[in-house]
Amino acid sequence: MKRIALLGSTGSIGTSTLDVVEQHPESFSVVALAAGTNVEVLAEQVKKFRPQLVSVGTEEAAFALRGLLGSEAKPEIAVGAEGLEQVARHPEANFVMTAVVGSVGVAPTLAAIEEGKTIGLANKETLVSAGPVVMKAAKEKGVQIIPVDSEHSAIFQCLQGERREDVSKVIITASGGSFRHLTRDELANVTLEQALAHPNWNMGAKITIDSATMMNKGLEVIEAHWLFDLPYKQIDTILHYESIIHSMVEFKDSAVMAQLGTPDMRVPIQYALSYPTRMPLQTEPLNLVKLGTLHFAVMDFERYPLLQLAYECGKAGGTYTAVLNAANEVAVDLFLKGSIGFLAIEQIVRKICDAHKGIANPTLEEIFAADQWARSQARAFVNNG
Amino acid sequence: MKRIALLGSTGSIGTSTLDVVEQHPESFSVVALAAGTNVEVLAEQVKKFRPQLVSVGTEEAAFALRGLLGSEAKPEIAVGAEGLEQVARHPEANFVMTAVVGSVGVAPTLAAIEEGKTIGLANKETLVSAGPVVMKAAKEKGVQIIPVDSEHSAIFQCLQGERREDVSKVIITASGGSFRHLTRDELANVTLEQALAHPNWNMGAKITIDSATMMNKGLEVIEAHWLFDLPYKQIDTILHYESIIHSMVEFKDSAVMAQLGTPDMRVPIQYALSYPTRMPLQTEPLNLVKLGTLHFAVMDFERYPLLQLAYECGKAGGTYTAVLNAANEVAVDLFLKGSIGFLAIEQIVRKICDAHKGIANPTLEEIFAADQWARSQARAFVNNG
Repeated sequence: MKRIALLGSTGSIGTSTLDVVEQHPESFSVVALAAGTNVEVLAEQVKKFRPQLVSVGTEEAAFALRGLLGSEAKPEIAVGAEGLEQVARHPEANFVMTAVVGSVGVAPTLAAIEEGKTIGLANKETLVSAGPVVMKAAKEKGVQIIPVDSEHSAIFQCLQGERREDVSKVIITASGGSFRHLTRDELANVTLEQALAHPNWNMGAKITIDSATMMNKGLEVIEAHWLFDLPYKQIDTILHYESIIHSMVEFKDSAVMAQLGTPDMRVPIQYALSYPTRMPLQTEPLNLVKLGTLHFAVMDFERYPLLQLAYECGKAGGTYTAVLNAANEVAVDLFLKGSIGFLAIEQIVRKICDAHKGIANPTLEEIFAADQWARSQARAFVNNG
Repeated sequence: MKRIALLGSTGSIGTSTLDVVEQHPESFSVVALAAGTNVEVLAEQVKKFRPQLVSVGTEEAAFALRGLLGSEAKPEIAVGAEGLEQVARHPEANFVMTAVVGSVGVAPTLAAIEEGKTIGLANKETLVSAGPVVMKAAKEKGVQIIPVDSEHSAIFQCLQGERREDVSKVIITASGGSFRHLTRDELANVTLEQALAHPNWNMGAKITIDSATMMNKGLEVIEAHWLFDLPYKQIDTILHYESIIHSMVEFKDSAVMAQLGTPDMRVPIQYALSYPTRMPLQTEPLNLVKLGTLHFAVMDFERYPLLQLAYECGKAGGTYTAVLNAANEVAVDLFLKGSIGFLAIEQIVRKICDAHKGIANPTLEEIFAADQWARSQARAFVNNG
């Protein structure tokens, strides 16, 4: 029985995780949930899954949640960063799904590793920000980090039964996001609404914008570097419009293994939960006949400069990827709030990375400091003008 | 060190096998070779790879081979079916690659199994003819049969690290062969030369004709049934024009694993030799960007009635698949000799299968008798008509 602590239960990955749990009550149960302030959805989840502990973002949300639950369910309720960590450390959990968005995922992930819990990692910013620290902790504790991102889950599945030394490269597929048919000139005046319409995946707002800027692929490249212990020259990206091949691994005999499927995050989520075996899942099976054609094209680094920047920051190492990620989080947030235009996201992130003086082999404190510095720099762009 | 006995050394798979051996002299050596009557090519192979034993099809070929070798190499030379079996049983061989064409592969494969040698199976007719007997023998002797056909190698690779009970189906890809763009009406007057021009693979004559009739896929479906212990309802076929996805496995969570690559038989040949690890191979890496698109279409059983017949014979079991294969071998041979037209292949095979009175759970002798009966029936079509 997997007893799950779920960080980010009301988001896209969180609700899909609970959908998977609901399909297999004999195998999965929920012992703790953490969410932000979406207490209406959280209250329904608590009533259905009966966790022992629930954490919310604010005292107001805690108060509202208590009101919504009434006498129906009375879980322990915790609040804020401390609450998030309590959920991650819940003594009855043996599997922690980290599905929060942003580098806020770092601390609870490290807490769960410290407790020796298996990690389902849906928060890519954790490894982008703090890859060296997190992977070192996981290694020391003998904790397995199972990727949940569809691309990394695909690579992870392709590596089953294979030796790492036989890998020649991994090939991460990219749909191109909502603006893939636009030139850079046409990007200047795109709206938030247009940016949020992803062609293949129904995801949260932040990752959908990251897909449109291709920063999402950049974060995935850096995540792959840490998850699979591969140098950047062995991590390729390719445009694949239909998002059917979720990613590939090329081996040194030129054989390529790929994982395919209809885009549905419940597949990699359930795989992380059921690994190393598989379980039935109610989802739409892949129908290649109906699709008819799969398309591929070369990645265009001039069209998507943030992907280029991500490779540069990844190769530079140290605190550069934490800065890249933090600057991007703030810039995307500013775009989502209407404070900046779409192309300003990449301008802000590039300028902050260029201005950063990196620290090699950083401690967690140094990573957090770099993250904070990048955030304040990014906010200053709007405040100053 | 893999010490290889190679049955069918001058054919397409045979020469590719020797090419792989040549790339890895530190890992692979050749201890015995068997060929038919192509002694010029065989003599060159003997001079290069220095096998201890060589077998040829006829006494004349043996005489000619001795002449070509002169004093340069003096391997033991054997002849005929007995020679083939001697090669398969060579005491120094630990790996037998069976790359002969047709049900002539059954006896030496069984001999190699009896000696406990690992089998690289490139002869699909072996399992189609004598699947129950061969698989039972392999199981009893604890012998591993590693598929070399690109489709079965792909499935075998997709199954690494997975549990068989998690498989929902295998999906065998089919290029459609040389006549895939023709209607059935247009097939009536096709020539041998047209039939031998396969769009993607450069293979032997028999398998190229089998590709054009789709019988090749039928044989593969039956081979997959035996190799992977799957009922026919869990074996699907799909048209995939580019032959880049070599085959796929769908698991019960709807995840699909696929193996891809540029069509080059040296990849599955080397995988069979290096399994469970991989080794570098000089071959053209897959370039999906250059390809741009992959196409898929539903298999058309009316367009390809021999595939339909193969499923029927497979489900009927017993001696039916041996009869299917033997009738097809003779019919293809008649077509290659110009004695019958292209569409007569399927008419002959269908009529003989319909006339056959099958035996359930046949012995090897009953299988061989059914095979012989089908051959004489097929030949009678020309003699009588």
